[in-house]
Amino acid sequence: MANQKQLALLGLALLVIQGVIAYDPTITMDFGFMNASTGEDFTSRAFSSNMLPPNPSAGGLVLVPQFAAQFPGVTGLGISSLFFKLGTGGLVPPHFHARATEIFFVLSGTWDVGFVDSANKLYSAKLKAGDQFVFPQGLIHYQMAGSSSATGYSAFNSQNPGVTLIASNVFASMPEIPSGVLEAAFKVDAMTVMNIRKALMG
Amino acid sequence: MANQKQLALLGLALLVIQGVIAYDPTITMDFGFMNASTGEDFTSRAFSSNMLPPNPSAGGLVLVPQFAAQFPGVTGLGISSLFFKLGTGGLVPPHFHARATEIFFVLSGTWDVGFVDSANKLYSAKLKAGDQFVFPQGLIHYQMAGSSSATGYSAFNSQNPGVTLIASNVFASMPEIPSGVLEAAFKVDAMTVMNIRKALMG
Amino acid sequence: MANQKQLALLGLALLVIQGVIAYDPTITMDFGFMNASTGEDFTSRAFSSNMLPPNPSAGGLVLVPQFAAQFPGVTGLGISSLFFKLGTGGLVPPHFHARATEIFFVLSGTWDVGFVDSANKLYSAKLKAGDQFVFPQGLIHYQMAGSSSATGYSAFNSQNPGVTLIASNVFASMPEIPSGVLEAAFKVDAMTVMNIRKALMG
Amino acid sequence: MANQKQLALLGLALLVIQGVIAYDPTITMDFGFMNASTGEDFTSRAFSSNMLPPNPSAGGLVLVPQFAAQFPGVTGLGISSLFFKLGTGGLVPPHFHARATEIFFVLSGTWDVGFVDSANKLYSAKLKAGDQFVFPQGLIHYQMAGSSSATGYSAFNSQNPGVTLIASNVFASMPEIPSGVLEAAFKVDAMTVMNIRKALMG
Amino acid sequence: MANQKQLALLGLALLVIQGVIAYDPTITMDFGFMNASTGEDFTSRAFSSNMLPPNPSAGGLVLVPQFAAQFPGVTGLGISSLFFKLGTGGLVPPHFHARATEIFFVLSGTWDVGFVDSANKLYSAKLKAGDQFVFPQGLIHYQMAGSSSATGYSAFNSQNPGVTLIASNVFASMPEIPSGVLEAAFKVDAMTVMNIRKALMG
Amino acid sequence: MANQKQLALLGLALLVIQGVIAYDPTITMDFGFMNASTGEDFTSRAFSSNMLPPNPSAGGLVLVPQFAAQFPGVTGLGISSLFFKLGTGGLVPPHFHARATEIFFVLSGTWDVGFVDSANKLYSAKLKAGDQFVFPQGLIHYQMAGSSSATGYSAFNSQNPGVTLIASNVFASMPEIPSGVLEAAFKVDAMTVMNIRKALMG
Repeated sequence: MANQKQLALLGLALLVIQGVIAYDPTITMDFGFMNASTGEDFTSRAFSSNMLPPNPSAGGLVLVPQFAAQFPGVTGLGISSLFFKLGTGGLVPPHFHARATEIFFVLSGTWDVGFVDSANKLYSAKLKAGDQFVFPQGLIHYQMAGSSSATGYSAFNSQNPGVTLIASNVFASMPEIPSGVLEAAFKVDAMTVMNIRKALMG
Repeated sequence: MANQKQLALLGLALLVIQGVIAYDPTITMDFGFMNASTGEDFTSRAFSSNMLPPNPSAGGLVLVPQFAAQFPGVTGLGISSLFFKLGTGGLVPPHFHARATEIFFVLSGTWDVGFVDSANKLYSAKLKAGDQFVFPQGLIHYQMAGSSSATGYSAFNSQNPGVTLIASNVFASMPEIPSGVLEAAFKVDAMTVMNIRKALMG
Repeated sequence: MANQKQLALLGLALLVIQGVIAYDPTITMDFGFMNASTGEDFTSRAFSSNMLPPNPSAGGLVLVPQFAAQFPGVTGLGISSLFFKLGTGGLVPPHFHARATEIFFVLSGTWDVGFVDSANKLYSAKLKAGDQFVFPQGLIHYQMAGSSSATGYSAFNSQNPGVTLIASNVFASMPEIPSGVLEAAFKVDAMTVMNIRKALMG
Repeated sequence: MANQKQLALLGLALLVIQGVIAYDPTITMDFGFMNASTGEDFTSRAFSSNMLPPNPSAGGLVLVPQFAAQFPGVTGLGISSLFFKLGTGGLVPPHFHARATEIFFVLSGTWDVGFVDSANKLYSAKLKAGDQFVFPQGLIHYQMAGSSSATGYSAFNSQNPGVTLIASNVFASMPEIPSGVLEAAFKVDAMTVMNIRKALMG
Repeated sequence: MANQKQLALLGLALLVIQGVIAYDPTITMDFGFMNASTGEDFTSRAFSSNMLPPNPSAGGLVLVPQFAAQFPGVTGLGISSLFFKLGTGGLVPPHFHARATEIFFVLSGTWDVGFVDSANKLYSAKLKAGDQFVFPQGLIHYQMAGSSSATGYSAFNSQNPGVTLIASNVFASMPEIPSGVLEAAFKVDAMTVMNIRKALMG
Repeated sequence: MANQKQLALLGLALLVIQGVIAYDPTITMDFGFMNASTGEDFTSRAFSSNMLPPNPSAGGLVLVPQFAAQFPGVTGLGISSLFFKLGTGGLVPPHFHARATEIFFVLSGTWDVGFVDSANKLYSAKLKAGDQFVFPQGLIHYQMAGSSSATGYSAFNSQNPGVTLIASNVFASMPEIPSGVLEAAFKVDAMTVMNIRKALMG
């Protein structure tokens, strides 16, 4: 499980976007990447097999974003993408995107996925290669690989969808959310909060 | 603690919105409430002191929404509001709004509030009567009363902002998110997941 | 009446926003205030009782905006607020907001409020503490205090809603709208136009 | 003056739009007029010389809107238009559009036009045939013919821009805005308010 | 035909907009032209008869845009315009606007116009002076003068609508689209592709 | 070539969307599919290998859309997708999407792709498995398979992006665009127009 924890945090780190403020459409130019000179500026090669990180071990995960920060060609166009590589049983833990709906396309393996609407109803499915699932903007969802490694591709309708990983965001923020808030919210004692926090901070 | 749990669920229930699909502006009419005949249709009296529920006891909370489902006058206008009544130490547990930014205005008492951005950085403040705080769209935040009962008012820039209470949404959805997903995400064992679930389901 | 006139113009002055062009959402970052470092950057203390201007005398008014120019934390978030302090019989004269719907929440006193739709139908109401009223974007409205001083709070779904005070905007612009235009529009003679202008210019 | 008053009200009547709620783009179909079968459905002949009302006499005006209510072909497309026919010295009195910017194109005659920004600064111009002027969304503006009859054409970036004629909206609403509000706002006495009201109600 | 070809390319050249990225509304200021000081900044005189280019000969065309690049007063306001001067039988060849719906108003002459929806259905009409036609955003359309010279005016709901002239865009791009792509798409041989290209490149 | 022609028209047929008018976000509910009851409603299985049509022969193509008409789960969410199966040398002929930017992800084979901006500049690239390319909203683009069969996946930031295949839309509309318009636009004679038309109509 240690392996997965480290990779989850790696995934999180990859997803942190620095940048300047900008806006999704309605654009007033053909595109927003002002220095574009050739088609290569609108090409991303980050998901070709020789560019992706090596396969994670069982329980691990690798997430490679191509948001505007990594792929400037999408600037101003209201779209971006992400590649998933999961080891057997790997998990993209519950999270949401504040600024985008996600359409998820399974490339290989089997996946258990689901989202919870704001009335706390779970919509889940088992997916195989070629299946798609849509995660509406701002709803919490998860994606878990089955009994083999698995890969997937997602597109988002924002150049910078935002990624909030629930457990890390709530239990491992800097500075910390007061322990009493988490104890009352999750109905646990202070020791449990501290243990979760330690485990997530790695 | 039982008191708070029940009230938290009451709050949740009040916030569940049934309705038909509709869209925030840009509107093409003066307003969206088609049967409006007098100013009373654009008036909400739900937050007057004699209409609000009685004060909660220590640790409890009452949340009264005036979204489009409760206050049809805001239909099509991209705005709505919510009233907070908290007992001493009462907590609006970590949650977010998928479709709106919230501006929070303290009416009485002292409050500890905060939100966590998508890079897991906490922005928190201590607020007194007259202070305001802004919770950006889709970011997790909490509001906790201090050593006295407390009241507050929030406005949202959507007629139906959506409310996702993190702990309930993740641990008490129907159907349940698989226990293994929550164990791996929060780094806890199956027993802890079950205990949290039971406590939240009340 | 002189007292009210001066305060009305003071209110107007407070509401004039200088600034750079920017756009309401859809944002592509968590928030638009690029130099934010702590929660204090998302906190406004301008409406706490010790920060507000002293109470106006009878017929007077004080309006304190917290738009993006005064409260940079709301930049890019499509929301802002305003505090009202009115003396007995004080009036926020007919005006409208070009870029926002307003939700108005009565804190104290009694208020006569109303808006006129684009078919010239008036929607009005009498409000007491705790009542709310919604003024749709771009419709002319007014708020008047009753037989005591009165306070209120409004939120807007734009970081800079725009405020056009009808009488001042039409009769006291710089340069002036030609007198003939105003005579024909309001069916008055040149002397009446001049008297209104003088009174509003103070 | 009677002539102008009647025509002003006629203009107003023409501009009152009944209809169902709908939204300007972003559309998800090619167009919003669902029963379209031929090009005639996207054609308006209302501004051809034999369809327009006869020329108004001196001081009079005729306004012919082609908003979605009159020209269903623009439904869902975020655009509409208006034809102006003014007698010598005719005036489109100060008004604004809550939901659209207007671009005005002079067809004949000379025009004095202007708008007032929300800081009460007037931007005015003298226009001749072929000149254009832009009135930003939600700002008060007027258009007045010079020493001959005059015609013009305007386009709006909404299918239903909304038209608020200031004087009528404020002084001749139904029901009436309380006289005291108008007295205080315009710094006039009750008799003047009554006289303006009577003149505008015709 | 040579005459028309040259003018078509001239028209194209006039329509190429250099500029910086910006966005159509929702704006957060009264207008987007930051250096505006007088009404002249919101006035365009480019369509007055003494400013327009001379009349084209038979088969020719002149297009004069007033987008934000030519008329900075419309910046941030989501609107712009274009003037058409066509010789007898002149043609605005099939083209579309990526970012705007167009409303076209005939000033003189007779016109054959039409657009094709995304199901390949043509909607066409014969227009005379005073008639209007609406071309929905992103649909291919054409405008052709009849047996006399003709003039027209169009407004667009973007400050920079974008103009893609189909034939030039596809057959005369720099660099060239591979000939094989065009042969297969238009079911023609390489010689025909080369001849079209040469004719369009002039 | 006959094979390709038929499949191109098949592709076109598949892409024609019937439906009711609706709008992309901003939504006011969690999602727009009102009858959703389980996760299966947000799942599309149309791209799994056993659901896709058989492989096209050399020069052929199969396009399978999952827009809102085929996959109601994306209703109101501003996203959709498309699967590409091309025989050796197969071509998605020049086309554009009126209402969406497209992000294209190569699954297998080699592809020559490109788009032309509104200044007639071509941006092209050679893509292999794992590469991505972005086609901005409303710009003409093409995708051609190399010396083997090829597959790809695209996502769009609209529930119904619109597809305009240039050659078919211009030369094979019903009714027909007048031959003279196409002769003048493409600088060809009437016989060539007729031949292209016949070939495209099949």
